Amino acid sequence: MIVGSEITSIRSARVKAARQLARRSARQRTRLFLAEGPQAVREALARPGRVVTELFVTASGGSRYEEILQDGAAEDVPVHAVSGEVMAELAQTVTPQGLLAVCRFVDVPLDQLLFDGTPRLVVLLANVRDPGNAGTVLRTADAAGADAVVFSDASVDPYNGKCVRASAGSLFHLPVVVGSPLGGAARALRESGMQVLAADGGASRELDELEDAGGLRRPTAWLFGNEAWGLPPDLLELADEAIAVPIYGRAESLNLSAAAAVCLYASARAQGARRPARPDGSAAAG
Amino acid sequence: MIVGSEITSIRSARVKAARQLARRSARQRTRLFLAEGPQAVREALARPGRVVTELFVTASGGSRYEEILQDGAAEDVPVHAVSGEVMAELAQTVTPQGLLAVCRFVDVPLDQLLFDGTPRLVVLLANVRDPGNAGTVLRTADAAGADAVVFSDASVDPYNGKCVRASAGSLFHLPVVVGSPLGGAARALRESGMQVLAADGGASRELDELEDAGGLRRPTAWLFGNEAWGLPPDLLELADEAIAVPIYGRAESLNLSAAAAVCLYASARAQGARRPARPDGSAAAG
Repeated sequence: MIVGSEITSIRSARVKAARQLARRSARQRTRLFLAEGPQAVREALARPGRVVTELFVTASGGSRYEEILQDGAAEDVPVHAVSGEVMAELAQTVTPQGLLAVCRFVDVPLDQLLFDGTPRLVVLLANVRDPGNAGTVLRTADAAGADAVVFSDASVDPYNGKCVRASAGSLFHLPVVVGSPLGGAARALRESGMQVLAADGGASRELDELEDAGGLRRPTAWLFGNEAWGLPPDLLELADEAIAVPIYGRAESLNLSAAAAVCLYASARAQGARRPARPDGSAAAG
Repeated sequence: MIVGSEITSIRSARVKAARQLARRSARQRTRLFLAEGPQAVREALARPGRVVTELFVTASGGSRYEEILQDGAAEDVPVHAVSGEVMAELAQTVTPQGLLAVCRFVDVPLDQLLFDGTPRLVVLLANVRDPGNAGTVLRTADAAGADAVVFSDASVDPYNGKCVRASAGSLFHLPVVVGSPLGGAARALRESGMQVLAADGGASRELDELEDAGGLRRPTAWLFGNEAWGLPPDLLELADEAIAVPIYGRAESLNLSAAAAVCLYASARAQGARRPARPDGSAAAG
């Protein structure tokens, strides 16, 4: 439901409070973050547990995204009408889409992830610094049917606006663990029965070879390193084995999200993943 | 060899001429483009056919990249010493790396690509608009051992600075065809003996199914569509078959470079690709 009249001043206290969430310190203090655009807002509203605390919408956004606003109304989420100028102040994109949500943090503790038994496919991000890369890997992990993504304490904040946008809604789809010390996370995953494989272009064992030997059928946590410098020896030691996506041509390396896509889909294939059934009985489109 | 004294003015004619290459119209008129940073410059110099016409280097770049400058000297490439301010004017990155090359266009006609027989693995980019995405797919194609990448006439300019940077040197590694009308390119590739597969998340046939049926062993051209709206029906018709990288989780789709990585590595695997041998006898690191 629309609360009050249209906010037209960027000095409005409500706008200022939301605008602050572009900063990590404000996000960590309030445990709130911003999700921008219809896709992210729709997925946030669809997530159980009342994730969205308030919505901001422009006049044109209001007519374009009527259905999403109805979802919000069904959950009693307060909606603030704002001018285009206010939306431009709130949004972190060059061409704001007219709809923005303030959301509660959605991450879960690692223990909770393991409480219900052994996950089959988990992503462990070590020292990933670029929020766009992290968000893309999150989206790819979701697509490949992964059970969770763990952001180590040295990795980028998943609630960073760029990461939220690059995840294309996937931040709201699968459990995300934030700020875990990498050593403890790797140990906990291994104790729960998973093998930990480090993706490392320099490794002598190749992905195809491991797949052919049946080594990808086991529950697997894939450890991915920094975009530029990969995994240093002390992090490689956390893994049971280092595995290379082979370079067949002359490229020096693959970028992080491409390497993650190849590894995660190899695991999904080996584990016999299936497309989820849709309400109409057809398979989901990708 | 260093030519003349350090250029300190951004109004220098030489600097202005190079700076113009940030614009597509100037690139097309001169058939020259800019390659920035040590990796791109090294790969440009390593490419046969005197691709680099001049180099710009700062004082700190000169001491950091001595070896690269020696490669340039071996090819008689004129080197211009420039101030940090001039480099900042020329470079299109926030933190320029102190070394920049003006390069001749490196694309080849489609006919030349097919002259020597049937390629085994080719990427066809239809309507790909984001230069970063195009460059990343180029890098992934190189890594997967593809024989060529074809940019259709509706796709981004591969000589765009962002595309050059995202390709991480791969623009200089494998044949690139530019500005081909898509229909003609698809027909020519098919006539040369390749199957044309369209990557389409909505397709009913899945990648794994095709792979299991042996359908990826044939020489294959992969057709990838626009980042946001994929392949419309008229482009899908250019392909022998549409193939989906299945979505096992709840993501709506994969991003372009992740989908390309999964498809290209599936083809490489099915075609029995091998890591190239290195001079020291070991396999190449990825």
